[in-house]
Amino acid sequence: MQGVPVLTAVELAIGTELLETEQVLAEELQSDNPYVSDILQHSTRFRGKRLRPMLLLLTAKASGGIRQDHKILAAVVEMIHLATLVHDDVLDDAETRRHVATVNARWNNETSVLFGDYLFTHSFHLASSLETTYACRRIGRATNIVCEGELSQIKERGNLDLCEEAYFKIIDGKTAELTALCGHLGALYAQAEPAIVTAMEQYGRSLGLAFQIADDVLDLMGNEGKTGKSLGSDLQKQKLTLPLIRLLSTASDADAAEIRQFLAHPDETTRDRLAPYFERSDAFQYTHQKAKSLANDARRQLELLPMTPARRILAEIAEFAVQRSF
Amino acid sequence: MQGVPVLTAVELAIGTELLETEQVLAEELQSDNPYVSDILQHSTRFRGKRLRPMLLLLTAKASGGIRQDHKILAAVVEMIHLATLVHDDVLDDAETRRHVATVNARWNNETSVLFGDYLFTHSFHLASSLETTYACRRIGRATNIVCEGELSQIKERGNLDLCEEAYFKIIDGKTAELTALCGHLGALYAQAEPAIVTAMEQYGRSLGLAFQIADDVLDLMGNEGKTGKSLGSDLQKQKLTLPLIRLLSTASDADAAEIRQFLAHPDETTRDRLAPYFERSDAFQYTHQKAKSLANDARRQLELLPMTPARRILAEIAEFAVQRSF
Repeated sequence: MQGVPVLTAVELAIGTELLETEQVLAEELQSDNPYVSDILQHSTRFRGKRLRPMLLLLTAKASGGIRQDHKILAAVVEMIHLATLVHDDVLDDAETRRHVATVNARWNNETSVLFGDYLFTHSFHLASSLETTYACRRIGRATNIVCEGELSQIKERGNLDLCEEAYFKIIDGKTAELTALCGHLGALYAQAEPAIVTAMEQYGRSLGLAFQIADDVLDLMGNEGKTGKSLGSDLQKQKLTLPLIRLLSTASDADAAEIRQFLAHPDETTRDRLAPYFERSDAFQYTHQKAKSLANDARRQLELLPMTPARRILAEIAEFAVQRSF
Repeated sequence: MQGVPVLTAVELAIGTELLETEQVLAEELQSDNPYVSDILQHSTRFRGKRLRPMLLLLTAKASGGIRQDHKILAAVVEMIHLATLVHDDVLDDAETRRHVATVNARWNNETSVLFGDYLFTHSFHLASSLETTYACRRIGRATNIVCEGELSQIKERGNLDLCEEAYFKIIDGKTAELTALCGHLGALYAQAEPAIVTAMEQYGRSLGLAFQIADDVLDLMGNEGKTGKSLGSDLQKQKLTLPLIRLLSTASDADAAEIRQFLAHPDETTRDRLAPYFERSDAFQYTHQKAKSLANDARRQLELLPMTPARRILAEIAEFAVQRSF
């Protein structure tokens, strides 16, 4: 693996199965209804990293082998992720995603709400094509927890006193629950032993947390052209994320008062106004350290697995989760 | 049954099982998250007719007997219905439902979108507690069709040339698919023979159509105080329903032109402005006739069943579906 770029390695390890997952998605996401068909067609252009299918297939490969059910499950988790993105774009009033107009921008909010529902219900329909109710039950529970996490985030909007613990609880629900499920289902449906199933679930959880922290950093410091999505939306929506929580808790009283003023009245200049405060703070280093430590947690969970290309890629993904934003 | 009010008869026939369904709902719709718990608490005040659980339990009772699974299924369909109502209230900007502030009015649209998702995912989680994936699969498919129906409705908003056929296709998806499912699951889980399962599904479908037509009439002609919800929203959203489709297709050219003017620029006076046109049209009689014919279709589906109190109530519900709005 040394020297092989991670995406090429993924291609080599699970390329065929990722393609088969894409086929499942393409076959499922069709509709006789021309309006729905147009939206489905448009939404294929949001095609992202496919992180969740990748995670599910790689943990399967690393812990026993990929079976037919895994491809269904990989398509299911991607559909759920897509549903949450469509609804997130409504909540955030986002105009672009992956350089493409969001469903709410291209059509309207009503269409986005219903299209998200369409994807949610479709994913459950697909999950129930498996032999037992086990996956349906786990997926139902996990998506329920995702919703609770997102609701908590809405509740805490505008709370400039949000603490680190509450932040972690929110991202554990809204992001890490689903990546933990990918690890769990990947290993379980590969008939791995219980200790490995637990370890893969924990791998997914730690990785999800690290990814979300990186996403939150990008929203504060990233480049719109490069990321292809509307940024700064956390500030606009007064959602406190880890760098800001750290900044506020370590700033001088005078600085903290100024920062709170900016946060309380957000506009398009807020990101720039905060920059000098971040420069004289350890907030980004601190956040980086937290993300790194979670990525290390994730990597440690891999120790029970035999040394295979899939295991090495899982380790590299944990590395990548942190690097991409720091 | 003669002379016994229909609700008392329901009480006698399935009172215990409806109560057990309420218990399932109350146990399921709990959360450790205080924000979610508050919304759940508030939403119990929307408690409506429980038409769908009633249908499911009555068709079960009439076609073989109510089992434990039926109470779970009844709670599942009610949760799905509640999820669609919560999202409908966002789409319609509705302020009250059953005399109580909607989730979007009391909290905000974001909370409503996520709370609807929470109810959807919770209903699937509950459905997957049954032994097989059959119900999950049917419920997943039906809710998917509901979403397609609602999306078609959005697409046709503002289309003043909507024809009857397209209207029926929309309400068949957004409303009748779920009531058809209630009939299907009620009979199937009572181990009724296939002909009865098909008949009960068709009963649910015809009844759902009749109910939706009645709802659409109420939105045009009802009394807000009596119905407890915001009315006239179809006009505000430029959604053409059966009475208007008939009115437009039978009005003189001059009248039709005036009506189109009102519909194209809706405001709070539109309902009153349309009243004189309706008075000199057969639109309401025609709509009534259509609803009555669907109710008759529904009643005819009951002929295969043994004559029991449950069957008689199903017949009366079909009657009631039409009477309540004409």
